[in-house]
Amino acid sequence: MLNPATETLQNQLNAESAGLAGPVPPAYLEEPRGMMLGIGGILARPRSVEEVSLVLRTCSAARVGVVPYGGGTGLVGGQLLAEGPAPLILSLERMKALRHVDPVGNTIAVEAGMTLAEVQSAAESAGRMFPLSLASEGSCRIGGNLATNAGGVQVLRYGNTRELCLGVEAVLPDGTIHHGLKRLRKDNTGYDLRNLLIGSEGSLGVITAAVLKLVAKPLELATCFAVVPDPKAAAQLLARMQETLDGLVSAFELVHGTGFDLLSETMPEIRLPFAERSEWMVLAECGGGTGSGVDSRLMDVLEQAVEDGLVEDVVLAQSAAQRDAFWTVRESLPEANKRVGAISSHDISIPIDRLPEFIAEGQQALKQFGPVRLNSFGHLGDGNLHYNVFPPAGEPKADWVHLKPDVMRMIHDLVDAYDGSISAEHGIGRLKAADLQRYGDPAKLAVMRGIKQAIDPLGIMNPGAVISV
Amino acid sequence: MLNPATETLQNQLNAESAGLAGPVPPAYLEEPRGMMLGIGGILARPRSVEEVSLVLRTCSAARVGVVPYGGGTGLVGGQLLAEGPAPLILSLERMKALRHVDPVGNTIAVEAGMTLAEVQSAAESAGRMFPLSLASEGSCRIGGNLATNAGGVQVLRYGNTRELCLGVEAVLPDGTIHHGLKRLRKDNTGYDLRNLLIGSEGSLGVITAAVLKLVAKPLELATCFAVVPDPKAAAQLLARMQETLDGLVSAFELVHGTGFDLLSETMPEIRLPFAERSEWMVLAECGGGTGSGVDSRLMDVLEQAVEDGLVEDVVLAQSAAQRDAFWTVRESLPEANKRVGAISSHDISIPIDRLPEFIAEGQQALKQFGPVRLNSFGHLGDGNLHYNVFPPAGEPKADWVHLKPDVMRMIHDLVDAYDGSISAEHGIGRLKAADLQRYGDPAKLAVMRGIKQAIDPLGIMNPGAVISV
Repeated sequence: MLNPATETLQNQLNAESAGLAGPVPPAYLEEPRGMMLGIGGILARPRSVEEVSLVLRTCSAARVGVVPYGGGTGLVGGQLLAEGPAPLILSLERMKALRHVDPVGNTIAVEAGMTLAEVQSAAESAGRMFPLSLASEGSCRIGGNLATNAGGVQVLRYGNTRELCLGVEAVLPDGTIHHGLKRLRKDNTGYDLRNLLIGSEGSLGVITAAVLKLVAKPLELATCFAVVPDPKAAAQLLARMQETLDGLVSAFELVHGTGFDLLSETMPEIRLPFAERSEWMVLAECGGGTGSGVDSRLMDVLEQAVEDGLVEDVVLAQSAAQRDAFWTVRESLPEANKRVGAISSHDISIPIDRLPEFIAEGQQALKQFGPVRLNSFGHLGDGNLHYNVFPPAGEPKADWVHLKPDVMRMIHDLVDAYDGSISAEHGIGRLKAADLQRYGDPAKLAVMRGIKQAIDPLGIMNPGAVISV
Repeated sequence: MLNPATETLQNQLNAESAGLAGPVPPAYLEEPRGMMLGIGGILARPRSVEEVSLVLRTCSAARVGVVPYGGGTGLVGGQLLAEGPAPLILSLERMKALRHVDPVGNTIAVEAGMTLAEVQSAAESAGRMFPLSLASEGSCRIGGNLATNAGGVQVLRYGNTRELCLGVEAVLPDGTIHHGLKRLRKDNTGYDLRNLLIGSEGSLGVITAAVLKLVAKPLELATCFAVVPDPKAAAQLLARMQETLDGLVSAFELVHGTGFDLLSETMPEIRLPFAERSEWMVLAECGGGTGSGVDSRLMDVLEQAVEDGLVEDVVLAQSAAQRDAFWTVRESLPEANKRVGAISSHDISIPIDRLPEFIAEGQQALKQFGPVRLNSFGHLGDGNLHYNVFPPAGEPKADWVHLKPDVMRMIHDLVDAYDGSISAEHGIGRLKAADLQRYGDPAKLAVMRGIKQAIDPLGIMNPGAVISV
């Protein structure tokens, strides 16, 4: 059983290092969609890996729970503990040093408290690109991106956060520092502790710094918004693009007409790319080096696709401004969703070749709940949909929200039947911990409990998140 | 303490499933370079994941060690147990089913016993490419590639085996089957058991099948052999190629003049690309889709590099035959090394920007051992060198091999000082288990022991490999 984080603990930490800990401002106890409220005894804001070690060592000795905190943008409650003894909240916000940039080997070493936008900008200054790209990049921190294995819009070409990380420095629950900041592309020396920490959502330790991969900045970009007859045509279009533009397709986003409806209802200032409403659309982008000719090659693929009936209408961005306008449409969808208010939101993935069938079956099955509206959109190239169910146009969410548990269960059961994932990129946190137990592979869950017990035997790390022992 | 694998165990297994186990033919107790001999009590060759489960369950109950066996091509003794109670050798050679190919989602599901060449060929039949490529691809098995996180010549563009795997089916030491054959690009549901098993060299369980990523086949290829003034120029040339040919550089191999000397001495039939001997050369390849123009774009980069003194001479492959000839030179280097016989061979990696400095310092330091010859070559694009020390030309290895421990220690100490890896792609096996203890991060080693204890508490899995508890 854990103890609450008290003023005594705060004083103890400050006696070791002045200014390390203090009371918890309310902002650390809220989350982006206002769906949960957290509790917290004290807030520690270490300035170095040694101070992180001090905090964890002290919390281990006092048996106090620790909730690691990045930018606070997580959507599954991994950063919020709602009940039990008040934890220490460990924010990495003061660890923002850029430790190293190597444009020859294409690596960057950053501390966990840098925002994703700051990492992108440091890469840019070195003439390179850090390709992780998320709607929340201005406020999320790279430590949180690593802890949750964040995804985003360029995973198709560059991979998830996991694939972009070469090494980590981390502090284990007892305060031991793991020095794993290697910047090597190949290193087969023992078990993959780096990937175990990445995606463990702060439940096994705290990542304090990381070496990340950089890539060449694409010098030529080509972006299109296309109307497609159905998701199956979209998947075929993707396959054709990948064949012709081998390795250069960086984003392939599915957009549904309902998303445009929600935009028109709540953000009429956003200019839509097509005059008429369509059911299914895709936003795709390719990038290449000098002389790659991505623009004309993309055009060739699209012309053939129009001829073959895979594309019904298409606009190719003619300028950087038009490209930005396309992306503004895509990136405003989550805000429009939020303003209308979903009955239930889902972050799911499905094997790409089964996605069209899943979409059709899901739309049909939702009819049992009445005239609800579905906005399914997202990273088709990764098989990852944001699958959100809304009340009928004009009706208040309050009248429909009682359906949430049944809608969620129906959708997750269907995802499971399609060998999909109930959490593609958001993680488990606390909101999906019960679902993980329900849908997870029993052998994997048993191993996870064994690992949690081995690394965090007192259970102080992010109690209740991901898995409990 | 473990018990030996006896005929009683063999009979017990065969009673459950006829023909499952038998005596061990000598071929399973040898390794490619003839450096070690193994022992083995019985050989089990299961035909299904259920039979693998039966074998492990039975060995757990009998406390008998299990040595998983792929193609037997490993170079660090992971497939050979030299002492202690005779183990059961578990060969996956009968599990060769192709379970699924999906050219839309670009995935393939294969059983562990398929050779790498068979996996490549199944991908090819589906109009796709499986990009893992190794000298031993005709005989190594995909299960072994996964267990050791194999690398090879296309890691620069496509990643190590780890990055090419989406999901695994595996059997844990107690016989529990982990059903993790998901073919999803994004799946953030709990700890990364897949990556923990990949690279654990059979010491935590046995991978029986995997879902692998496929990629589009490059429709245009451009390959060059270039003479460079030094490794620093080579690294700069690589950076330029990556900038201009963003994402399309698939191989960038460093070759040393000593390698050509060894070829001339032992395999004079191999035709070398240059008439005169040079110290440093690179073999580079780029591939792209239709209209990517990689040939002329590579030419542009090379012309500028010649002008700037980064390249002294260069041959661009004019035909598929010439491309193959270039690769034959590169792929014959290990065989030439073997025929001459190294005093000591090393599979190391170094941060790419420090590699030139490391090479210079290493060459200097080797002089303390007399007129030995160094052949350092390999995957410069990954910072990975095969760094082999030979006797002077014409002198027998027997007169020099006593230097091995000192040479190895000197090189590994130097690698460690450069924040490099003492095993870039070959793994730890048994040959480097002591080195892992010497050079490994203590926090990581402690976690590794905790994980080994949690997953394999009886210590039956590949005893003595990687780490012991």
